[in-house]
Amino acid sequence: MRMVDIIVKKRDGKILTKEEISFFVKGYVNGSIPDYQVSALAMAILFRGMTKEEITVLTDLMMHSGDIIDLSSIKGVKADKHSTGGVGDKTSLVLGPMVAACGVKVAKMSGRGLGHTGGTLDKMEAIPGMKIAIPEEQFMRQVNEVGLAIVGQTGHLVPADKKLYSLRDVTGTVESIPLIASSVMSKKLASGSDTILLDVKFGSGAFMKDLQSARELARTMVDIGDGLNRDTRAILTDMEQPLGLAVGNALEVKEAIATLHGKGPHDLVELCLEAGAIMLEQAKVVKDLKTGRQMLEKAIADGSAFNKLKEMVRAQGGDVSFIENPEKFPLARHIVEIRAEEEGYVRRIEALEIGESAMRLGAGRETYDDVIDMSAGIVLAKKVGDFVKAGDVLCVVHTNKNDFAAILEDIRQAFKLSKEKLAPLPIVHDYIR
Amino acid sequence: MRMVDIIVKKRDGKILTKEEISFFVKGYVNGSIPDYQVSALAMAILFRGMTKEEITVLTDLMMHSGDIIDLSSIKGVKADKHSTGGVGDKTSLVLGPMVAACGVKVAKMSGRGLGHTGGTLDKMEAIPGMKIAIPEEQFMRQVNEVGLAIVGQTGHLVPADKKLYSLRDVTGTVESIPLIASSVMSKKLASGSDTILLDVKFGSGAFMKDLQSARELARTMVDIGDGLNRDTRAILTDMEQPLGLAVGNALEVKEAIATLHGKGPHDLVELCLEAGAIMLEQAKVVKDLKTGRQMLEKAIADGSAFNKLKEMVRAQGGDVSFIENPEKFPLARHIVEIRAEEEGYVRRIEALEIGESAMRLGAGRETYDDVIDMSAGIVLAKKVGDFVKAGDVLCVVHTNKNDFAAILEDIRQAFKLSKEKLAPLPIVHDYIR
Repeated sequence: MRMVDIIVKKRDGKILTKEEISFFVKGYVNGSIPDYQVSALAMAILFRGMTKEEITVLTDLMMHSGDIIDLSSIKGVKADKHSTGGVGDKTSLVLGPMVAACGVKVAKMSGRGLGHTGGTLDKMEAIPGMKIAIPEEQFMRQVNEVGLAIVGQTGHLVPADKKLYSLRDVTGTVESIPLIASSVMSKKLASGSDTILLDVKFGSGAFMKDLQSARELARTMVDIGDGLNRDTRAILTDMEQPLGLAVGNALEVKEAIATLHGKGPHDLVELCLEAGAIMLEQAKVVKDLKTGRQMLEKAIADGSAFNKLKEMVRAQGGDVSFIENPEKFPLARHIVEIRAEEEGYVRRIEALEIGESAMRLGAGRETYDDVIDMSAGIVLAKKVGDFVKAGDVLCVVHTNKNDFAAILEDIRQAFKLSKEKLAPLPIVHDYIR
Repeated sequence: MRMVDIIVKKRDGKILTKEEISFFVKGYVNGSIPDYQVSALAMAILFRGMTKEEITVLTDLMMHSGDIIDLSSIKGVKADKHSTGGVGDKTSLVLGPMVAACGVKVAKMSGRGLGHTGGTLDKMEAIPGMKIAIPEEQFMRQVNEVGLAIVGQTGHLVPADKKLYSLRDVTGTVESIPLIASSVMSKKLASGSDTILLDVKFGSGAFMKDLQSARELARTMVDIGDGLNRDTRAILTDMEQPLGLAVGNALEVKEAIATLHGKGPHDLVELCLEAGAIMLEQAKVVKDLKTGRQMLEKAIADGSAFNKLKEMVRAQGGDVSFIENPEKFPLARHIVEIRAEEEGYVRRIEALEIGESAMRLGAGRETYDDVIDMSAGIVLAKKVGDFVKAGDVLCVVHTNKNDFAAILEDIRQAFKLSKEKLAPLPIVHDYIR
């Protein structure tokens, strides 16, 4: 078998066999197939696509290219949730404790942020003392005892994806649904949870720019999970505007805490209740979504969800006093309000622009080596559909940078007003299973 | 400027600027842009194509990536002819002497053969003593004095193409008309002749499998030449069956000699007269093609074309006695006739099959390291349109291999007979200028 023949076959729109996909994945991981052939194949896949069967085989082979986490020592159903990334997405910090409070085990491996999207691990590290690299044995014990752990990736998971993703990143081959789907799913499957809920975001602040492509990606990933016998479901959620109000690491942790106290912004609460209900149903803790929502609402009302967050923070070495007294999080040197210049209904808040501005304020990384300023970010005062009078605060900007005038102007430009009354944007658009 | 942005731009079907193409060509040659990005771009070009302007810019930059041969010390018009490669294509050995005998200078750089197509240099080396690597100064002097030299590539020509072509060969990106056209034309333009005639072959034995794609390639290459102010024309010629009767190095040299004696097979003679007339018109030696043909016919009839071949062979150190007495070429150990089993009209002679069989008989290389058996090959006794009776010789096989039974069977299968009377295949299908 020759790699060039596999490239030509896919280039010409034909379907690759399991043997051919295996030849390419194994050869790439062991170094016998060079990058320049794999990038050409990736580009051919981007143009020609892959069948459901090809994608499932590819994912299965990638998943088995390295370690597979064995969570069998953890009692009960282990549920995982993955977001394709967005602006202000602190869902894991709220949803994890909520679901764990309802008796489902959450053994979550998260990532860091790059560009306009934040990563859960970065947000966790806004809490002083919080460890995100913990030994596997301790991770298992914590999930068994607390019901919840959120850590960085442990073990040698999916080396095929690590290698392939860095190559795709520099060869213009990221935007291929078969390759995105197999990348995400190989990691989720190797992480060992019994159920997977995918939060596929679409809109200006998301990787998928429209509902249709998000739906295609979600369908593809759910099909992979089904094909490999893992209960996999997906929700399609809005990322035209940031999720919730806070964007920036400590600011988002504070919003997560407030949400667990029952004082969360409507869209974040709604997303956590919808996603949480599905996770409870997947874990067979409830028979239907309505019962799931009620159970989750109770976990917030009785403080048990908030207590789960505290327990997790304590178990991972974090300073719980910050969770109990969020005013302890240090504030940035400059806190500046941006006010509306005219009245109207908020028509758009460009999530991409807000995310990039937050990054420039210090809240994110432009390259992997950048250091994050935990206190930096943006807190929205208005969301799409809200009415504002001239002089009303649109958002509050937090930064330790001195030269931020241009950033303020960009943030202001991210708000688009309309004379017409507008309905708020729904958060969950569809549920795919 | 980042290479990944250039890849994405082409992937999304946009037109690259001169600066972007220059960034990629220069970066690839100087090593700052890695193979894996170039192969991804090549695949994107294969799917998206390039405009006439992009291809011209690419060719110009590739041409200038290395040395450019200066033929100005050679008096008169220097004409070049390039074939895209086929089976039994000994045209250069006939056409070169014919055109040179009419006063046009032919300073030709040729290549070697690989796979089912033979190379002119290999055929030249069937003549004992013949040198194909000669110093540039001697090359110039020979063209000035004899009017004709056929040598291997001298100097450091088009390093961008050398590097790009080896990469395309292993990444499934050979079959892109913009890349083929810029590869061929950058080399032809750098070789320094005043006029270029392209013989674009199509059919089972050619790189282009059908007339339409051959026409597109020819049009693209002629446009490049025009865009860079070089008189460039093309003919589209048949390669469904081998050209002429002989396939194999010494066998083809003998056929070339016979053709220069006025005893050539019809299609080869016709091709040389058509192509030669165009070259004479390009060189302004004649005002129209008809006069050109007459002049070329005369050069054969009066022996001046044959004499040019002898002069070239002598100048390049070859043993002229072989040209004068072609029966001196050693014969292969086994000479086997293949006879028709039934009667009928020859409908097809699969050129690809004949070329590959000749290679397996020893006449060609499967890899660059293979050594050629100069005496091996196939001589057709019939061509498409000919009538054969059962028992008639279809072709004669020459080989020094012992285990050739399977090859004989494949050669027999390459002949397809029909009960219906068929017209012979025309050789030159179109003329593009």
